[in-house]
Amino acid sequence: MASLETIPVQTSSDLLDTTTIIALSVFFTLLCACIIIGHLLEENRWANESITALLLGLCAGAVVLLVSKGNSSRLLVFSEDLFFLYLLPPIIFNAGFQVKKKQFFKNFTIILLFGIFGTVISFCLISFGASLLFKKIGVTSLVIQDYLAIGAILSATDSVCTLQVLSQDETPLLYSIVFGEGVVNDATSIVLYNSVQSLDFNHIDATIALKLLGTFLYLFFTSTILGLAVGLLSAFIIKTLYFGRHSTDREIALMMIMAYLSYMLAELLSLSGILTVFFCGIVMSHYTWHNVTESSRITAKHAFATMSFIAETFIFLYVGMDALDISKWKESCAGAGTSVAVSSTLLALVLIGRAAFIYPLANLINCLSKREGAKIEFRKQFIMWWAGLMRGAVTIALSYNEFSSSSKATSTKDSALMITCTIIVVLFSTVVFGSVTKPLIEAVLLRHARPAISDATDIPSLDDLRLLFLENGDEDDQDGNGNLPVPRRSSFRLLITYPTFTVHYFWRKFDDKIMRPVFGGRGFVPFVPHSPTGAENET
Amino acid sequence: MASLETIPVQTSSDLLDTTTIIALSVFFTLLCACIIIGHLLEENRWANESITALLLGLCAGAVVLLVSKGNSSRLLVFSEDLFFLYLLPPIIFNAGFQVKKKQFFKNFTIILLFGIFGTVISFCLISFGASLLFKKIGVTSLVIQDYLAIGAILSATDSVCTLQVLSQDETPLLYSIVFGEGVVNDATSIVLYNSVQSLDFNHIDATIALKLLGTFLYLFFTSTILGLAVGLLSAFIIKTLYFGRHSTDREIALMMIMAYLSYMLAELLSLSGILTVFFCGIVMSHYTWHNVTESSRITAKHAFATMSFIAETFIFLYVGMDALDISKWKESCAGAGTSVAVSSTLLALVLIGRAAFIYPLANLINCLSKREGAKIEFRKQFIMWWAGLMRGAVTIALSYNEFSSSSKATSTKDSALMITCTIIVVLFSTVVFGSVTKPLIEAVLLRHARPAISDATDIPSLDDLRLLFLENGDEDDQDGNGNLPVPRRSSFRLLITYPTFTVHYFWRKFDDKIMRPVFGGRGFVPFVPHSPTGAENET
Repeated sequence: MASLETIPVQTSSDLLDTTTIIALSVFFTLLCACIIIGHLLEENRWANESITALLLGLCAGAVVLLVSKGNSSRLLVFSEDLFFLYLLPPIIFNAGFQVKKKQFFKNFTIILLFGIFGTVISFCLISFGASLLFKKIGVTSLVIQDYLAIGAILSATDSVCTLQVLSQDETPLLYSIVFGEGVVNDATSIVLYNSVQSLDFNHIDATIALKLLGTFLYLFFTSTILGLAVGLLSAFIIKTLYFGRHSTDREIALMMIMAYLSYMLAELLSLSGILTVFFCGIVMSHYTWHNVTESSRITAKHAFATMSFIAETFIFLYVGMDALDISKWKESCAGAGTSVAVSSTLLALVLIGRAAFIYPLANLINCLSKREGAKIEFRKQFIMWWAGLMRGAVTIALSYNEFSSSSKATSTKDSALMITCTIIVVLFSTVVFGSVTKPLIEAVLLRHARPAISDATDIPSLDDLRLLFLENGDEDDQDGNGNLPVPRRSSFRLLITYPTFTVHYFWRKFDDKIMRPVFGGRGFVPFVPHSPTGAENET
Repeated sequence: MASLETIPVQTSSDLLDTTTIIALSVFFTLLCACIIIGHLLEENRWANESITALLLGLCAGAVVLLVSKGNSSRLLVFSEDLFFLYLLPPIIFNAGFQVKKKQFFKNFTIILLFGIFGTVISFCLISFGASLLFKKIGVTSLVIQDYLAIGAILSATDSVCTLQVLSQDETPLLYSIVFGEGVVNDATSIVLYNSVQSLDFNHIDATIALKLLGTFLYLFFTSTILGLAVGLLSAFIIKTLYFGRHSTDREIALMMIMAYLSYMLAELLSLSGILTVFFCGIVMSHYTWHNVTESSRITAKHAFATMSFIAETFIFLYVGMDALDISKWKESCAGAGTSVAVSSTLLALVLIGRAAFIYPLANLINCLSKREGAKIEFRKQFIMWWAGLMRGAVTIALSYNEFSSSSKATSTKDSALMITCTIIVVLFSTVVFGSVTKPLIEAVLLRHARPAISDATDIPSLDDLRLLFLENGDEDDQDGNGNLPVPRRSSFRLLITYPTFTVHYFWRKFDDKIMRPVFGGRGFVPFVPHSPTGAENET
């Protein structure tokens, strides 16, 4: 083996950049550690995987900082491309794929109200508050565009952390509202942020709010329609071409790629990729998922969840490591006092901004709602407020985008200060608010809960409703026994009494008669003989 | 909607690079098309997914070339990092994970012989042939290092295409030999290539071959051991920590990440990542896979296969689009005549280089083998020769590495010519040789096959062998009834008669008594109650 000295032992590493390999090795080792530690802490109600990843990332950043003798804590530079192109889509797609559709659509109006109007209220309040308070702290070089950007940046709640903290089974109503709001909210913040970037502040007139609203509605509807279209296309292709006959791998690959394609197309058309891929996930779980073989179904469910899980852990690890961005800390030149003051101001604004729309809007909903059971009680309002306080990777990505470019009028010092303070807010809110949420929910909600129905279905179930329709003879209209006028009048009466459920009922009829025969879905796929379960042939 | 004109509709696309989005959209659309067309051509015995992807890539390249008015055919620049870091590992890992271990280890000596000595023979022949013939064509500026590099580059067979052309079920012996050889051969070529790069050609002495051999053996064993170690670690972690109790997603994530980590670690330690991740896959399918829940098993099997499938299709699409690299074609300034001459010379050398080791080595094996059934008949030798002629992405990646750097003594013109000719060889061999292989196997092998046993197990099965051992009382040694000397002598006799199978028998005993109790494996995992099958809870 002495001969080895003269010929340096080299393989592909010669072809690859060594720093990339080191960075990837460290990252994947940390990911493994996160999964294992996260599992061991599963029973612990204070910790969760996000917090573990964040803290582990911080420790790793500190080690790198020590090893590089204070020069750098970053193995990989935080890249918006990596985040928006590769990490966010699988998370949002999986959320759409696994979401309980009935709950989600039942609360659709509440979700839209919170997600759109709530975010706008929070945006206005944070922008206004920051512009008022920052000057007193001594941050003077920011312009109006920066303040508006700060409002948009800090209005983006972190739907990833919400997913981990709330349980879809224990508190389905809260989960669907807070999480649904999170998805709409991400889209709203990004639209707001981009509108702020493109606004010409020399020509502000009264129509600006209307213009923003128009832009937002356009984006919301076109993005949703694109997502639905791609989802339906995937269902149609898989149903028509019978992929199940041949290969599970092709089916899964096609679902994955088409979902990703929907995100890319939305971005290409300057729509909101997040909304598109979310609705694409919903359609895929409703139609496409039922068109594939049994083993594809199991694989799809778990493979998508796994990819989302890895992406989430990766993001938090990344944010943790990025927090000790020494160059930004040096650049900002701010004393600990200023940093703490700015961060606490931002945190306070986040708290107030969220409170300012949750309580009024929830009470508005309570006033409009006729039935006692559908009202949102104060305890739930409190949890809704609290569970949406976490700020995450979207905030950091937007903050880098706003304050790291050098072509701004804002001084480098203040820009760096804003980035470091955003990081502090994200870290603090995720670690402190995040770890307190689970125990808080237990304390506030579950202990005082009225048994069983407190949170779930507090209105007649679909079966009850169908019975109601049946009693009114609605199901008989195909038999042609003459009593058609009665169900029609009664349907209208029902629509007034239970609007959501009547819509649902007619949707189900439409779905069964028109959509499923074309796009497949539960019970509408022809039997495939020899459907491989994949588990038998153990090699 | 007239208001939309004043506020440009923008969302995240503002945050992302538009060209990246366009490139990704086109790529993923093409991937979808490949999957669908590949499915429709499934029944066609001439085409396969590689060829479809390659041709589709070529078409797309041509379209881009037309759209950009002849300036560029490339949406994404071919990057060695992308290939070696992200596309190759899942393919090789999946190959290890799905390989039929019994067949693979039965033919292990043949595989090593072909993979190592065969590649070296082919390398010498191609280098020598190129250095002799190229000067006659008019390519003069290449130095000795370039010729050696060409030998290494063109010795790398394309194991990806082999996987698609040969069937593991129809021709298990051929599949395991040709594919196993492909994996070892990739590693050998890369080691040879890197050795060539690092050699000092001013001090060539007689020990150089010995040094190369030493390097290779060192790499082979350390890489294998690293792969085995990481695989066993994953089995141990999952067995000890009972991930199944909690989450399928965690188990799959851990398997994926640890497999990838093994590749990264190997590259970090300057070993052969390909070998490491291949053996990691084998160990994972033998131990780890049995430690997880039922739904994780199904998911793992299909998710890994899907990732590998996507990576494969991606690579061929990429190579196809890259073929019309107009800048290289312009740079080479070579007439069609020179290009064709160089390409055909290279193709001829590839054909001869492979023939020069397949036939002699196969006949050597036939001479050494005592039993008639274990011999490799001429027809099979022919198929082995033919199925290994395809050249793929490894070849292109190495060729770019060698000839695209500007710091070489070789003239830019000849470097560009070498790259374009390598691309021609890859395209031609994949499309022509690849499409002919399936019909050829049918014509040569299957029609003339002796029924059933012709290719599969032509030696006594394991059960027969165990019976043999049992008759000799070997299984009684635990009962302590005194006749120990007899089985020992008989074991030795058996080792001489059936070496592979005796090794296998003792391996199985060792596996059952020592390995499986520690690392789990089939039948050695405690029963997990409520093992989620995942298919029930349809949301």
